[in-house]
Amino acid sequence: MAKDFSTREENYSKWYNDIVQRAGLAESSAVRGCMVIKPYGYAIWEKMQAALDKMFKDTGHSNAYFPLFIPKSFFSREADHVEGFAKECAVVTHYRLKNDPSGKGIVVDDTAKLEEELVIRPTSETIIWDTYRQWVQSYRDLPILINQWANVVRWEMRTRMFLRTAEFLWQEGHTAHATREEALEETYRMLDVYTRFAEKFMAIPVLQGSKSENERFAGAMETLCIEALMQDGKALQAGTSHFLGQNFAKAFDVKFASKEGTLEYVWATSWGVSTRLVGALIMAHSDDHGLVLPPKLAPIQAVIVPIYKTRKEYDVVCEKARGLKHELEQHNILVKLDDRDTHKPGWKFNEYEFKGVPVRLAIGPRDVEKGTVELARRDTLKKQVIPLKDAGAVVTALLDEIQDGLYQRALSFREKNTRKADTWESFKKILDEKGGFILAHWDGTAETEEKIKDETKATIRCIPLEKNKEAGRCVYSGKPSEGRVVFARAY
Amino acid sequence: MAKDFSTREENYSKWYNDIVQRAGLAESSAVRGCMVIKPYGYAIWEKMQAALDKMFKDTGHSNAYFPLFIPKSFFSREADHVEGFAKECAVVTHYRLKNDPSGKGIVVDDTAKLEEELVIRPTSETIIWDTYRQWVQSYRDLPILINQWANVVRWEMRTRMFLRTAEFLWQEGHTAHATREEALEETYRMLDVYTRFAEKFMAIPVLQGSKSENERFAGAMETLCIEALMQDGKALQAGTSHFLGQNFAKAFDVKFASKEGTLEYVWATSWGVSTRLVGALIMAHSDDHGLVLPPKLAPIQAVIVPIYKTRKEYDVVCEKARGLKHELEQHNILVKLDDRDTHKPGWKFNEYEFKGVPVRLAIGPRDVEKGTVELARRDTLKKQVIPLKDAGAVVTALLDEIQDGLYQRALSFREKNTRKADTWESFKKILDEKGGFILAHWDGTAETEEKIKDETKATIRCIPLEKNKEAGRCVYSGKPSEGRVVFARAY
Repeated sequence: MAKDFSTREENYSKWYNDIVQRAGLAESSAVRGCMVIKPYGYAIWEKMQAALDKMFKDTGHSNAYFPLFIPKSFFSREADHVEGFAKECAVVTHYRLKNDPSGKGIVVDDTAKLEEELVIRPTSETIIWDTYRQWVQSYRDLPILINQWANVVRWEMRTRMFLRTAEFLWQEGHTAHATREEALEETYRMLDVYTRFAEKFMAIPVLQGSKSENERFAGAMETLCIEALMQDGKALQAGTSHFLGQNFAKAFDVKFASKEGTLEYVWATSWGVSTRLVGALIMAHSDDHGLVLPPKLAPIQAVIVPIYKTRKEYDVVCEKARGLKHELEQHNILVKLDDRDTHKPGWKFNEYEFKGVPVRLAIGPRDVEKGTVELARRDTLKKQVIPLKDAGAVVTALLDEIQDGLYQRALSFREKNTRKADTWESFKKILDEKGGFILAHWDGTAETEEKIKDETKATIRCIPLEKNKEAGRCVYSGKPSEGRVVFARAY
Repeated sequence: MAKDFSTREENYSKWYNDIVQRAGLAESSAVRGCMVIKPYGYAIWEKMQAALDKMFKDTGHSNAYFPLFIPKSFFSREADHVEGFAKECAVVTHYRLKNDPSGKGIVVDDTAKLEEELVIRPTSETIIWDTYRQWVQSYRDLPILINQWANVVRWEMRTRMFLRTAEFLWQEGHTAHATREEALEETYRMLDVYTRFAEKFMAIPVLQGSKSENERFAGAMETLCIEALMQDGKALQAGTSHFLGQNFAKAFDVKFASKEGTLEYVWATSWGVSTRLVGALIMAHSDDHGLVLPPKLAPIQAVIVPIYKTRKEYDVVCEKARGLKHELEQHNILVKLDDRDTHKPGWKFNEYEFKGVPVRLAIGPRDVEKGTVELARRDTLKKQVIPLKDAGAVVTALLDEIQDGLYQRALSFREKNTRKADTWESFKKILDEKGGFILAHWDGTAETEEKIKDETKATIRCIPLEKNKEAGRCVYSGKPSEGRVVFARAY
């Protein structure tokens, strides 16, 4: 590997940044806290979007688009929501610039001050529920099952590419229901969609759970989440699905005439995942040779590199390579042939290895003679020579094998790094020496949760949905507990 | 048609708004000048996006994402650009709100003032060229062929849904090239992509041309455009492709080492279309019965409505209808079966007619007996009864016929409404009595162009690319001209 690239061992944080930058995924921009998502990084996000969008539509949702701007006063309507979201945000106060009278560029035109400031959406519950009021009269208008793909802004002080940026891209689902049961069902349904996406596409096993009150979405009655474990032993929240009760319906006066003729407040959910998932993807699978991508989200699934010395060899090899490309395309494989003669094969090997292309095929004059091709898989770095004529079937099977292998590897990593702690000493010891998920008893109070966080930086990642009833004593306070919850330090 | 719906004749502007709202395409939001794009309207935009995105990728472009915010100073760098764009824009000045000390909601926190104000992008040339500086060292790094799907904000005073809104959705291509010729070639290539999209997908014939200096994009050397004619005789600019020369490269200091070893400024293009196209689509084809959609952009291409009186008939008819749905899906037709028993067939007929669904299929007990189905096409409102077993093939062919028919109808409308004017009197008379495109001689000066605009509100829509050399005299000034240009009043 290139000398200037960190290993995970040396510096995990630098290793992550090096991958993001050198694999061409993203870079910092001239605007504090905002990143530029480069074509290769954006292509991964597009693949995520396509898979999720299909899952949303298959579960009956439609896309729509709501304004970027939210009137400031909207945030005051829902008491908890304002505390959680209205504080660190981008505020538009003016709508015009003018030439500086002193001739130094342009300045804000003070005569163009907005009567009410506009907030760049940090999340869209308020503007959407203000809209839903017009859409809902009777139970016949329900459910409303809408999703939005959008950019949002939260003025974060410490940012990291993909994981935490001031502006990020996401989807936010916002649904409206006639009953509490239907809304709860939707909350769980979307958590399952996220779980399937994480496991089948991202090849990342996740824990399903609910958040403690402290960690709940501002304005929610219940926040469900999926939690993944990264290679440095820290947890990453990979998606949330909120049961909002009637909070937003009450704040925005959204009522409907029920079948029975009574006037009721509407029940709500919201759920979202963001470009943060690209960060999770990088950290879950990559190694000291660079990015590793699961085939289902790889913009390039297989790359063909021609090996040659002379111009004549180049022509012969490239002809075969083009045939191979066509063959793989027939198998619906996203394949790239890099036949540039400005870069050497060795350079290309490094390049695609670093970019995490799952399968590399090299074909040289000897291969042409023998009707073979050399195959290298990115996950294990193992090579094999196969008959050229079998390439389509072999690569297809190999991509499935890699997808599954990455999931299994991540799963066994998580299993190895999920530990029970029954004393406060062992809790702290595990956290400092090994990290990972810690299953421990908790007395259920926000006070204890806060103290644990203050002393160790560990938070309750979730209260597992599949909670095994188990009587015990809180690892911190010694008070009684009915079951273990999941602690970890987190991104 | 419903009584409260305007005809084009009565009130064209109200007719347009009625369609937008009643067909469920969009509505105004609580934020001045910003609209909510509702699911049915957004589904049309998604179909446009999918078609365009494929065309961009087929011509070698990749998607990426750049920040929403642009530092104010960036706009001062390109002299023309600042005049055109920095003035009417949304300006972020603060990054925090706080509780009002007097307890009345939340207020801007004055201690959280940005050192440099951020402008919400009205277009992204500046932030993108600031980024490209890092990406380009040598000719090997060129061309850069990038597109971005994004929201942009221009603080418009008079807004109309889809046609002109403060925030809108669009794509913006930004390419960088080693030579003037390559950049020009790209500018024309993308104009052709837009032309093909307008004609093949939107079924709208367009004129290709270049803009006069007055109407050029701020910062461009040359702006190419496609111009469409709406049913009220007004023109609508449906897409632009700009040759930016080296203006932005100079403003942001983007240079490359050429093959010959010299240091040169990079050549640029940018090109974009927006949700405005949804407005164009509505106005080009719709009629006094509501929306009319070309099949290639219709979210629902065919709708099946069961006809029945008794529960038993409902069951029998719906079973056939489900079979029919399956059959049409096998033909890749986007089909909806509306088997709700809460709405009457007549209501459904009106609903889908108003929503512009290209083909309606009605099936009743008699049809079940006879093995037939009734077909109604939205464009001509004609009906026919066909054998049920032929439905897949017949509807497939019919969708093509409707797509082509809409284009031909729009084309013949444009031909009928394109007129030559050789005197100032006839110019004004045509404009006031008929509207449409006027082909007239122009002396080539901005002064004359301005005067014509002041006196008639007509602008030069474009100087046709296929300009027929024809000596003449300017319709306004009488000075010599080498060929006719296209005038119209425009959206």
